[in-house]
Amino acid sequence: MATAEETGGAEAQPWAEVTPDAARRLLMAAVEAFAERGYHATTTRDIAGRAGMSPAALYIHYKTKEELLHRISRIGHEKALEILRTAARREGTATERLADAVSSFVRWHAGGRTVARVVQYELDSLGPDARAEIIALRRKVDAEVRGIIEDGVATGEFAVPDVRGTTLAVLSLCIDVARWFSLDGPRTPDEVGALYADLVLRMVGAGK
Amino acid sequence: MATAEETGGAEAQPWAEVTPDAARRLLMAAVEAFAERGYHATTTRDIAGRAGMSPAALYIHYKTKEELLHRISRIGHEKALEILRTAARREGTATERLADAVSSFVRWHAGGRTVARVVQYELDSLGPDARAEIIALRRKVDAEVRGIIEDGVATGEFAVPDVRGTTLAVLSLCIDVARWFSLDGPRTPDEVGALYADLVLRMVGAGK
Repeated sequence: MATAEETGGAEAQPWAEVTPDAARRLLMAAVEAFAERGYHATTTRDIAGRAGMSPAALYIHYKTKEELLHRISRIGHEKALEILRTAARREGTATERLADAVSSFVRWHAGGRTVARVVQYELDSLGPDARAEIIALRRKVDAEVRGIIEDGVATGEFAVPDVRGTTLAVLSLCIDVARWFSLDGPRTPDEVGALYADLVLRMVGAGK
Repeated sequence: MATAEETGGAEAQPWAEVTPDAARRLLMAAVEAFAERGYHATTTRDIAGRAGMSPAALYIHYKTKEELLHRISRIGHEKALEILRTAARREGTATERLADAVSSFVRWHAGGRTVARVVQYELDSLGPDARAEIIALRRKVDAEVRGIIEDGVATGEFAVPDVRGTTLAVLSLCIDVARWFSLDGPRTPDEVGALYADLVLRMVGAGK
């Protein structure tokens, strides 16, 4: 998939795996509608309309509005996990892997900010089962970053008094990029990624 | 005003200045409704109902739903500015003032997370004039933190290659506390404040 930079700033869309085409169009329409108006103010009729389809055509693919949000949230979290897992498991020192994890995760949140906002801010709109599934995915996301920090502490590269708290702060810093990032701002996703990688290495006391 | 800790974890309410009592009750009802259902899914009738009042009684105090959001957002941002200004202008080294600014700002976002979420996530729901006013307040918030960092660079306490970018990251880290903080979590607002003050001092290279 093209990154935001490769496509000149268009948002990264992690929906290639969604088939058939109609199901994918509906999912992308739902992301737009949820981001603009919020989950509760959006109807399945709105979503079908944005995708140029009838409500009846929507129900072939998704039984409820919640099913759309659940699907969006699962795909978003699986992509986040894949990005961090790739960085965590590559060759290299903990310092290199943490810098890679942070810069990739930031670029993704800048490039896919509309999706990321829906996924982050509408978590409470999911029903209990869907929410439990997503929270389990979030624990795995967390564990990838914590693993890199623990590796760096073990090798003596990092000095971190509170590994869990620092992991939380690192992820939080990256996730909040989706809130404030704008293509009209002075920095590209790559530049924010590089800045944040440097700040996070300072947080873990790397290179001292 | 009592902090979240002093009130045993209840959320900090910055509404003491809103009078008369009916106007304050409506504002608090609006915060709850916007946080639960989103701005666009909330009607003035919902808000009046939550406050135990009639829609006609609401219109005495607020002409539109947007006026409620604008008032909430202005009060929230003025309070944020007051917190950071107090920390920035107290006696002490830049290191002490930055630690104070971060821990106070974090405690406020943890304690007032419902208000903070509405203020942060519904910014795009404001009309152009209200939005411009809030953005001007945000620039002042930003300038307070940037000022402390610049002071620390000038005295040699901090080593910061990118002051603007670091200011953005510090504020972002504090603001995102409102998204993830939960009273069911393992840390109190005070503990998160202390952790984040330490992490931010590392980000600016303090104490090297």
